[in-house]
Parts: sequence; C-alpha cells; structure tokens
Amino acid sequence: MAQARTGIWFIGARGGVASSATLGLIGLQKKLTDSVGLVSELPQFAALPLVGWDSLVVGGHDVRRTSLVESVERLHRESRVFDADLMTAARDDLTAIDARIRPGTLFRCGTTIERLADDSMLSFAHESPRDAVKRLQADLKSFQRDAKLDRVLVVNVASTEPATNYVDLPPRWQDLERLLDEGAASPLSASSLYAIAALDLGFPYINFTPSPGATPPAIGELATLRKTCHAGQDGKTGETLLKAVLAPMFAARNLEVMSWVGHNIFGNMDGQVLDDPINKSAKIQGKDQLLGHILGYDPQTLVTIEYIRSMGDWKTAWDHIHFRGFLGTPMSMQFTWQGCDSLLAAPLVLDLVRLVELSHRRGETGLLSHLGSFFKRPLGLENHAFDHQSALLEDWAASASE
Amino acid sequence: MAQARTGIWFIGARGGVASSATLGLIGLQKKLTDSVGLVSELPQFAALPLVGWDSLVVGGHDVRRTSLVESVERLHRESRVFDADLMTAARDDLTAIDARIRPGTLFRCGTTIERLADDSMLSFAHESPRDAVKRLQADLKSFQRDAKLDRVLVVNVASTEPATNYVDLPPRWQDLERLLDEGAASPLSASSLYAIAALDLGFPYINFTPSPGATPPAIGELATLRKTCHAGQDGKTGETLLKAVLAPMFAARNLEVMSWVGHNIFGNMDGQVLDDPINKSAKIQGKDQLLGHILGYDPQTLVTIEYIRSMGDWKTAWDHIHFRGFLGTPMSMQFTWQGCDSLLAAPLVLDLVRLVELSHRRGETGLLSHLGSFFKRPLGLENHAFDHQSALLEDWAASASE
Amino acid sequence: MAQARTGIWFIGARGGVASSATLGLIGLQKKLTDSVGLVSELPQFAALPLVGWDSLVVGGHDVRRTSLVESVERLHRESRVFDADLMTAARDDLTAIDARIRPGTLFRCGTTIERLADDSMLSFAHESPRDAVKRLQADLKSFQRDAKLDRVLVVNVASTEPATNYVDLPPRWQDLERLLDEGAASPLSASSLYAIAALDLGFPYINFTPSPGATPPAIGELATLRKTCHAGQDGKTGETLLKAVLAPMFAARNLEVMSWVGHNIFGNMDGQVLDDPINKSAKIQGKDQLLGHILGYDPQTLVTIEYIRSMGDWKTAWDHIHFRGFLGTPMSMQFTWQGCDSLLAAPLVLDLVRLVELSHRRGETGLLSHLGSFFKRPLGLENHAFDHQSALLEDWAASASE
Amino acid sequence: MAQARTGIWFIGARGGVASSATLGLIGLQKKLTDSVGLVSELPQFAALPLVGWDSLVVGGHDVRRTSLVESVERLHRESRVFDADLMTAARDDLTAIDARIRPGTLFRCGTTIERLADDSMLSFAHESPRDAVKRLQADLKSFQRDAKLDRVLVVNVASTEPATNYVDLPPRWQDLERLLDEGAASPLSASSLYAIAALDLGFPYINFTPSPGATPPAIGELATLRKTCHAGQDGKTGETLLKAVLAPMFAARNLEVMSWVGHNIFGNMDGQVLDDPINKSAKIQGKDQLLGHILGYDPQTLVTIEYIRSMGDWKTAWDHIHFRGFLGTPMSMQFTWQGCDSLLAAPLVLDLVRLVELSHRRGETGLLSHLGSFFKRPLGLENHAFDHQSALLEDWAASASE
Repeated sequence: MAQARTGIWFIGARGGVASSATLGLIGLQKKLTDSVGLVSELPQFAALPLVGWDSLVVGGHDVRRTSLVESVERLHRESRVFDADLMTAARDDLTAIDARIRPGTLFRCGTTIERLADDSMLSFAHESPRDAVKRLQADLKSFQRDAKLDRVLVVNVASTEPATNYVDLPPRWQDLERLLDEGAASPLSASSLYAIAALDLGFPYINFTPSPGATPPAIGELATLRKTCHAGQDGKTGETLLKAVLAPMFAARNLEVMSWVGHNIFGNMDGQVLDDPINKSAKIQGKDQLLGHILGYDPQTLVTIEYIRSMGDWKTAWDHIHFRGFLGTPMSMQFTWQGCDSLLAAPLVLDLVRLVELSHRRGETGLLSHLGSFFKRPLGLENHAFDHQSALLEDWAASASE
Repeated sequence: MAQARTGIWFIGARGGVASSATLGLIGLQKKLTDSVGLVSELPQFAALPLVGWDSLVVGGHDVRRTSLVESVERLHRESRVFDADLMTAARDDLTAIDARIRPGTLFRCGTTIERLADDSMLSFAHESPRDAVKRLQADLKSFQRDAKLDRVLVVNVASTEPATNYVDLPPRWQDLERLLDEGAASPLSASSLYAIAALDLGFPYINFTPSPGATPPAIGELATLRKTCHAGQDGKTGETLLKAVLAPMFAARNLEVMSWVGHNIFGNMDGQVLDDPINKSAKIQGKDQLLGHILGYDPQTLVTIEYIRSMGDWKTAWDHIHFRGFLGTPMSMQFTWQGCDSLLAAPLVLDLVRLVELSHRRGETGLLSHLGSFFKRPLGLENHAFDHQSALLEDWAASASE
Repeated sequence: MAQARTGIWFIGARGGVASSATLGLIGLQKKLTDSVGLVSELPQFAALPLVGWDSLVVGGHDVRRTSLVESVERLHRESRVFDADLMTAARDDLTAIDARIRPGTLFRCGTTIERLADDSMLSFAHESPRDAVKRLQADLKSFQRDAKLDRVLVVNVASTEPATNYVDLPPRWQDLERLLDEGAASPLSASSLYAIAALDLGFPYINFTPSPGATPPAIGELATLRKTCHAGQDGKTGETLLKAVLAPMFAARNLEVMSWVGHNIFGNMDGQVLDDPINKSAKIQGKDQLLGHILGYDPQTLVTIEYIRSMGDWKTAWDHIHFRGFLGTPMSMQFTWQGCDSLLAAPLVLDLVRLVELSHRRGETGLLSHLGSFFKRPLGLENHAFDHQSALLEDWAASASE
Repeated sequence: MAQARTGIWFIGARGGVASSATLGLIGLQKKLTDSVGLVSELPQFAALPLVGWDSLVVGGHDVRRTSLVESVERLHRESRVFDADLMTAARDDLTAIDARIRPGTLFRCGTTIERLADDSMLSFAHESPRDAVKRLQADLKSFQRDAKLDRVLVVNVASTEPATNYVDLPPRWQDLERLLDEGAASPLSASSLYAIAALDLGFPYINFTPSPGATPPAIGELATLRKTCHAGQDGKTGETLLKAVLAPMFAARNLEVMSWVGHNIFGNMDGQVLDDPINKSAKIQGKDQLLGHILGYDPQTLVTIEYIRSMGDWKTAWDHIHFRGFLGTPMSMQFTWQGCDSLLAAPLVLDLVRLVELSHRRGETGLLSHLGSFFKRPLGLENHAFDHQSALLEDWAASASE
C-alpha cells in the first residue's frame, strides 16, 4: 500500500453522499465496517498499489450551515441507515472534519439551491467567477498545507445544477479563461468553477454529478495543460446501472424493446433540488440516452424522477420494459429497485478517489475514460454496456498492477 | 447463404416449443414474419455462411396424438399468441410436417409423461433400449432419404424427464453401449436414447431440455467417435437468463447478495409435467447453481416453479434479490418477467440449428462449448456470466466467417 | 325481463369503450359470450326487472371517420383482445350500427381532439352552441323514431376534454340556457351540449368521462325539470378503483399513509388525447382526491398518466404506497395493475344503461347517486369507500326489486 | 377511562410479537410514541370505556432463555426497527417484566420448537397435561396476586404448532377434560393447555396464532361454563388481510379470479419454525380458504411461506392475481407487501386486549365473534370480507359505548 497522505476535498461536503462516504471512511479506518460495496476492494484489483484508507484525509466546500454530525444523524433517523455504534465512534472525527469545511460558491446554481444555502453565503453574492476561483484555490492550498498532504483530489458530490448551465462554451482553455472575468454575465457555473480551481492547481477532479464540471472541452484541456487528470460524469448507482446491464441482454437476444418506462421516487435533499424542473431536466437527460446507444435504435422512453418526502434517501425505481419477441409477441419485464441512494454512491466515490489517485501518481493526464463504468455519462466512451465498461477497468488494472 | 438441404428433427415435435419453432420457420420461409428474437440474424453474425431458412425441412418424434395444427391453435387460443393470418397461411405446411412425425419412446420418462402419451405408444412398451434406438434411427434415415437431405440435426425439446434419470453411467462409450441390452433395468432414459440414435448416425444433437440427453461423458465420446457434434443443456430463456445478466452486476459492484428468491408460475404442458415433483427437481437444479459460480459465494436461494393452469404459456417469474451495500445497508431489487415460454425458446432453437449446422459443416466435433450462452447448464463452461458467454459466441463467429 | 325497446346512444361511438361495449352487446345477444365482468348479472341483482340484452339497440355520435369494424379490428390487432369467432359473427351487426352513427360536435374539445376529427366535421365549425344542440337532438329523435324505441339513453364515452372546460357556470338552468346563444364565446363545451341535448328531450344521460357533461348544477336542474335522470362522473375501472378499495383498509387499521404514488401508462386513442397536458390535467384531478376523503388527512400523492404507444389498450399502473405502522415503522405496498382499459369499461357502461333505464322507468329523476360505485367522482356522494358505495347500490336494488 | 388494573399474560412472551407489543405499551405509557397502528385509538372507538394504557401490566410464559431486552435489540439490529431512544427509556421496565416470565409447556409443540427451548424446560418433560395446566394456573394466580390485578387476559402469540395438533376432540368439556389425564397419549397440545388454564380460572383467552388454542368446541364450552370469553384465531396482518380486502372487489365487479398465487418470505423466529413443513401446513391452511367464501367459487390458489434468513422480521409477499374480464379477456394484478411482521401484529394484540377486557367487564361470555376483523380464521363468522367484519366491530362498539 502506498502511504502518501492524500486529501479528499468534497464539493457538497455536508450532503448525503459526502457524509456517508466520510462516515464510511472513518469506519474503514477504525475497522468498524467491512468492504462490501467497495469496488476497489474486489480481488481483481488486489494487485493495484492503491492508497490505503488510513492515508486519506477529508475536507471540503459546502453552502449550507448544517454539520456533518447532523447530516449523518438525519440519514440515520429518516432513512434507518448506519449502525448506532459506528456513529458514536465517528463523532469526534466528523466534528474535526467539519471544521475543515469552507464556504463554497453559488455562482449560477439556481434559486432552489440558493434557498438551501446559509445566509453567510450572501457575502460572496457579488464575487466574480475569477475571484471565486481564487478563493476556492486558497481553501484547497490551506487544506494541503495544514493537513500536510502529498496530493489533493476534488470530488463533486453537490446537488444538480440547472440544465440551463449546459451552454456552449469556447472549446479552448485560452478562450474560456477570459469568461472568468465576465462577472454575472459569465456562462460558467459553480461546478465548473470548482473544476477550474482544482485542475489549475494540478489537482485531479472527479465529477460524480450531472452538472457540467470539467466536461466542457476547454476545461478538459486545462487538465492536460496542468498535467493532471479528471473523470466523470454523474455516478451510475441505480436505475441507469440496471439499464446498462439489462439492455445489452435484450440486444444480444434480438428482442425488440418497444418502450422502456422508468419512474423514480425519493425524498432526500437531492430530491428536493430535483423537484425544481430546471434542475431536474439536467438529471433526466443522462438517464436515458444510453438505450439508443446499446440497442442501436430508439425505443419510446419515459423517465420521471419525483420528490416524495417520506422516502428519505431510499430511491425507489419502477421500470416497465415492453418488448417484442419472436412472431411479434409482446412481452414485458418490470423491476423495482429499492436502494439507499447515498450508500450506493458513497463507496463508489471512495473507489474513484483511490483509482484516480493512482492514475495521477502514475502520471496519467487528461480524461480517465477507463473509469466509465462508474458514470451515467461516461466521458470519452461510446459503449454504454456495463460489462464492456467493467472490462475496460480490469484491463487498465492489469496494466497498472506492479 | 449455403443451400445444402438440412433437416431439423424435433424430439417432442408437437410440443409448444417445436410447434412455435415450426410455425415460425414457415413464417420466415413465406416472409410473413420478421427476424425479431433470432440471434442468428443479428448484424454480428451476418458474415457467417449460415444455412438459409428455405433450406430447412422439419420432421420429428412425439409420443402424443395431437396434431401440429391443434398445438398451434391451442397456443393461440389459450395464450393469445400468433397472428391469425400466419396460422392460416401455414396450415397446409403444418399438416405436411405432421405427417412426418413418428412415434418416439417413453423409456423411463416417468408416469406423468406416460399419462399424456397416445395409446398407440403401448405397442413399444416392452422394447429394449437397443431396439428403441434402432427404430428411432430407422425413422431418421427415412427422413433423410425421403426429404433428400444433406444433413439432419436432432433437437430435443421434449418435456423434462424425472430427476431420477440423472444416474451415474460408465464414462466410456464401449461400456455404456452394453447397457442398451439391459432392457427395463437399463439406467438410460429416452433423452439419451434419442441422443445415441442421432450421434451414432453422425447427426448432430442439440439438447434444449434439462433431461440427460448427450450429457453423460460416454455419449459425448460417441459424438467424437462418429465425428459429429452436440450442444446443451437446457435452454436459457427467462429467469435464469436474467440471473446470468444481473448477478455479474452485483459481483462487479461488490454488493453482497444475501438471498435470491425466484418464484415461477406457468400453465402449459411443460408445466403440467413439472407439476410432478420428480420431474420438477430436475428442472430446478439447473436454475440456481449459477449464482454461486458468478458471485463466488453461496447466497441463500429458493426457486419454485409451479403449474398454474390459467397462465397458459405465459411464464411469469417474480424474483426478490436481497443484498447488502456499503456500511451493511440492506437493499432489494425485485423483478417480474412475463414471457411467453414457447416463443422465447423457439427462435433460439432455430438459431442453434443454424449454428450447429455450420459447425458440423466446418468439421467441428464433440461438444460445442461456444454455444453456452443459449443454455442454463452450459456444458463445458465454468463461467456463467452471460456477457462472457456472448463474447465466446462472437469470437467463434469471427473465426468462422468467410 | 322488461321488453321495452331501448336505445343506447354513445357519444364517441367508434372509440375503444363504445366499440367494445357494442361488440359485447352483440355477443350477449347472440349468446357468444358469458356474463363475466357484468355487475348487473350478479345474483344480488337477479330480482331487478332490468331490460334484456335483446331489447337494446345502439347508435351514436362520433367525430372520426373510422368504422366500428376497424375500431374492433384495431383493438384485436394491437391489444390482442376479442375472439376471432365473435368478431366474424358480429361483423354485419357492427356495420349496421355504424350506419346509425352521426357526426358529433367539436365545440371547445381542444386542438388534440380536433386533429383526430374527420374533415367532414369542418362543416360544423361555425355552428353556435344552440344550433349544435338542435342538430344533436334531431339525430336523437331520428334514432328513436327509425329504430322504434320506447326509450333512449345517452352515454358519454368520448375522449377527455381539456381541463379548461371546467369553468364556473351560472347555477340555474334559466341563466345557463342563455349561454347557448353566445357562439364561440360560450363557456359550454361539447360534453355539456350533448348532455343538454339529451336531458332536454327527457332522455337520461350517463357521463362515463371526466368531461363536465351534466355535472354543472344548472344542467342537473334541467334533468329534474324534464323529469329525467343522469349519473356520473368518470368511470372507475382501474387504479382509482383499487384506491377506493385499499385506502379504507389503511384507515381501518390506523396505518398512516405517508405517500401514495401512482404511475399509469397506456397507448390507446384516449392516451393520445391525454398526452396533451391540457386534457390530462382534467383526468388526473379525479384520480386523487378520494384519498383525503377516505383517510381523513392528505398524504403526499403523485399521479401520472402517460401515453406509451406500444401498450395499446393495456393500461398498466404501478402504485407505491408508503405507510407508517406501529412505533413509527415505515412499510410499503406496491401493486401493478395490468388491465385492458376498454374491456374494463365496456361492461360497466352496459350495466349503467340497464340500471339507469330501470330508474327512468321507475320515475326517478335528477342525479342517481346510488350509482356512485361506478364512478371516480361519484356525483352526490361524499363517501369514496368502494364497499360503502356498493352497499348503496344493493340497498337501491332491494327497494327496486319487484 | 376505566382504571381497573389489568394483566396481559403473553404465551410466547419473549417472541417478536410480544416483545414489540410490550415495548410499544411502555412507549404508550411513557408517551414516547403515538397511536398509529392502533385500531382501538380510532375516532370510531373513542366513546368506548376502554382500559387505559397505564392500567396494563405485562407477564407471561415462554420456553426460551433469551430476555426481552435481547429480543428487542435483535429486532432493532436485524430488522432496523424501533427508535434507539425508546429502547433506552424502556430498558428497566423490560427487565422488570422479564422477571415475571415463567417457563411454559412444550407439550406436543413439535421438535422444531423443542430445539429452540431452554434446557431448563427439560424438567417438565414428563409432566402430564393436567399437571401442566395446574402449574400454568399457579403462575397466572401468582401474577394476579403479586401485581394486584383486577383482571388477567391470556394472549397466545407463540410460534405455530404442528398441523398434526388439529385432531378431532370430543365436543363436550366433560369428555375433553378426561384427556388431561392421558399423559403423552393425550391429543391436546400446548396452545390448548394454556387456553384451558386461563378459561378455567375465568380469565379471557385470545388466540393470535394458527394453533388450536380454544378453538375446539369443548374448550369454547369451558369459557361459557366459567362465564368468561375468548376470541381467535390467527392474527390477520398482511397478505390475508389484502385478500380479504381485494377479493370482494373482484366479486363486486363480477371479474372471475382464475388463479391467485401468493408467495411469502420472511426470516424471523416464526419463519424458522414454519420452515418445518409440519408446522407450516397449519399456517398455510388459514391463508387461503377465504377466497372461496368471498368469491363463491374456488379459483386455483397457491400459497407458499418460506424462511429466508436475511429478511428478518420483514415479511414480503408477492401475490399474482390472474382474472378474466369482459369477453373473456385475461388480465392481472400483482402486489408486493413489505411489512414488518411483529410490528403489524403488536398493536392488534394491544387492541384485542382492550376490546376483550371491555367485553369481559360487560359480562359477555363465550366466543366474541365481533372481533373477526382481527383474525385470518374468524371463529364464528362465515363472511370473510374485511369491510363486513369491520362493520361488525363498529356495530358492537356503538352498542357498547356508554
């Protein structure tokens, strides 16, 4: 195991995913939990010199006032997750990490996210994009210095930004960079400012959300220019994972998918943000386009994702797949997926940190497309079949093992 | 397209699968249906010199008195499948094929299958295994001669034999062959007699059922001795297919499957036979063992398969998968599969005929393990993951393309 | 059995519900089908002197050019319903009934319904509401005269009108009646014009749709003034029926429903109309309000109803009910309902005709609230529990039996 | 509120149902939980002079060594139920109650239950039925005396006895009573010995299990002879409750149920006992016979109930209802019920105690058939429709209100 001290800097550090990942990391460090759910702990990756759990240190940005302990307790209370023993044992560590969380930026995050923000965020209301980047970078550098870190990775697990953030941007960094000075008129949004702040410092950036982040080509170029790397976009944890697994089966059997309907309900903070149609459309886009890629034709599809308060973190999806078999026979498959959203995402976030850290250490730069199996919109990959994406990761692991 | 005339000889020629495959073949020959459901019509197999639909001729064995037309009409009426137009257009061809169906053998098929048999089968009640094989071979040779066929393939789509047929047999053909003379005391059962009859004549044998057929090593040896080939065992059409697709996903994400429960209900002839616990146990065995192989540990499993008259050919499966995610969080997935059993099986049977015919033409002998993706118990394969098995087939296709 | 000849006049006579009801009626008259699905054939109604199937004659209004035979064949082909034998036997009768179908009115039906209409409907484009009513009444009187009918009942089974039709209207008939002269500015819409046409002639009116029809109090008053009767509104055939059955159970066990989510998909003509959000909102409103009535509090609810072409007439609903039991324990129930929409509605329409005919014959006037069990929005009833509504009907039957 | 001190004596006092009911009662007494799930707290019963929560005192019999605290903690850990706060607050009370739990009897309980029993139970292995009854009665009298109780009710919530216990017994108490002396040859089993012990002392007996208890007519006669009362049999908490609610809907709509399949999985202690086929058959019998009663004909039915360890107390049922609608159209409904078994049962047990206590106080004797809505096999009732049974309870409440 490599023992270089590595920082994880969460964007959205007090949200459900980051809280769960942080609590889980503490559990792993204290040996109070096992490795279930962690891809990087599978036998096929045992030969990789991945960073050990003990070498990881957490910090982050957030825009809300709550605390990590409160976030964890809320998940426990509302969604019946986490052992009481682990929570007790982790309390002090959570409080210490909380003290390292700094105010983020709300730049073009939309009014729904703004309403959730702490009043103290108002002081940054008139900050230009460039000033925001500078402030965020100062936070990152303090974190590295204070915690004596060899390396820092930035991971975006914040709530989804409005779809309107997906604008055309100039394809070259030198042109995009000028937009930082445009103030309120700048088309850049928070997720991209965080990405720029990280990559410009040579820190890897992982985008676990549907927000733009480092996806615009000019920001990807920045990663290469600064000899660092990035991966994304939008963690593949539930219904979309199943689509990526099931659709290849329909294709392999030449069964014609006539329609694929997916309804998702959940009640966590993310759900509240997605209840705003502007934020939601960004999310839904990513859940559906893979079917056409895998099947080679476009069945009628429908995806909804709705905020149902009582569900808490339990994202429940019902999918109805209507397909045509031999001699035109209509048949159907339905599935219900009842998964705890934050706890499906959290281990993948920790896996990504370890895998990207190793890539960075090995000198890989730019987009890390071998990590596509983790993402709904795997940047740099055309093939959406999960088994194909998993094979890419295993191939990389074979080449990266000592 | 190769134009050698090829015979398909169905064991269980008037059953649901054979009736549907035969009707479908006629539909393909008359261009009254499309290629949906046919694996061999996928683009990735377009370069293979597969036998054309027009070159295929159907005959078979059965033990029941009904007719192909009656079987087809019963499926139409009870299970609401098949276009009325196709049925009308195929009527004469079905009648002609029916005239080629010869009485099979009931040797050690169990009392449930015996009860379904036509009284005329009584005349063979005291036939020795060797006499049965000779009679079946005479039927096969007449078929080849009368229909002027370059090649004949035998496909077992008959109802499942009792689990008690799965006995230890001598591993060498020279020893097994002597058991043909043991009369009622012989441990061989009908499915193996059909296999021996076919392979001994150099005809390929495909086992689409859970019955032993050519699975005993000595019978596999016979295939090699006669320079012919065989494939099996037990068509993978519904719930087990989904297990082979979904289980690798749980493995790849390190999600611990705690239990996997599958309940199947259906109401066709096959269901009636499986309603006899002796026949059923043979079937259930095959549906479940793949989980341990794929996951690397044995979750608690439960599989039931029950005869519910009203369901007709619509096999409906409900599966409940209880799994443990990060930090010990229990989650679940359920699916319901509503598939028409005969119409899921029929195209695969036609695909297998074309693929095995090509293997035979290319001189491949013995077990064709690259066809494992079609089978619940893929003979010669340890890896049960569907994507792995599909890749084997595509690799073979690449090497077999002109 | 009473033998007075009775006319059924369908609004939307070539739609799925009317086609199915008409075909079913012919089947009952020819004794080619049994009484399954018909409430009025249950033992508890055997003593009622209901009109016999042989005494019923069908006519109607429609705005589309298709024919009854085409409608029936389309349902058969796309949704795999109806026996081929019944369709053949009914062909001539369907054609004869088709000849009695007259052009309806599109007044304020919305652009989606207009797009489905036959071009010949253009000739009525500038008709005033009063002229439309007169024309519709002329059709009704011709039907009664030509078919020598003792009594005619008008049944609205047309597609849902836009929600914007639900406007405030003057509560008295004498004031509402003046709006018939307002031309394009009149707030009345087609369903109400049909209701006025029928009731003004003393013909009973049954509203099986969510459209306003006779629901405005002034039109109800017209029924009383003309000594005739009406019933409605919006047939309760699937998901809402289940809500009316299940919600009282949660109430009786003091289980707190936290959320009730219902997603409906289907692909028939009705679905196409509902795909227009303006028409849909009218429909959804009716599906949900009963929960608050039954439970005594308002859980979070969500209802979607989406047009998925491949589903044809098979309306599939997934409902997720999240409830809280003792000691705050969250539990859930899910159901999937796979029903053929037209064939769930058709027998209820025939039942309503027989039951309303008897009420009319017995001299009952105004709103027939004892028929509430048939409707999503049972006019005149506050209690939405299905068992309570069923008891009302049985009580009425006891008093109406000879 | 009546303030007479009332004892609840649980048979199976450390099992899941009794533990949950006891914890819930403490929660109600300490006002740490609300009334959700409690039927007796519904407005329609507000006028009844029911015993208050504060007047109830718990004791009981059990055959296992575990403690109430351990049972509660196990449910919390394995099934994620109960608030940690309530558990902490109730700890001392649970320990005090535990001290009042006395060893029960294993007489003819079957080997599966015997294996779960504490070794100390061996000392009673050769006890005659009459000696067992005397010993149990001594426990009951000590409880009444020590806790200064005006009234004691005995509630059977123990695991299901083998179906072989359902034997023909003499119909009169005077004849049955003699069997107490027959020793090992006596056909009476534990549940009936408890019932005899209670009723003979004039204490009401409630049978929440499928075991015989007070169901044999001779034991019912004993209740009347001793001027006390009893109610049963087998709490209706999940799938059967839904059958009693849904089947009347199919009947009221004249929809023909062709088949009704129900598969249940769960993993608590009860499940372990039911995993023994001898105990299970007793359970399944009760789950299915109501369909024929409600529908008036017998559809094909199938019920399984299987022990799946990982499910803990979460009993999950999948039901598939295949029904025929108008014109012979086959349709289907499926539901999944995910309920926590002990927490569905516990409040009903508390309700029954309050309702039976009032009946006893009012001088009602013999079988209390107005409580049928609580039971799968409602003794003394032919009508299995849940709404009918609920109405019986409300009618009784109206007559019993002051």
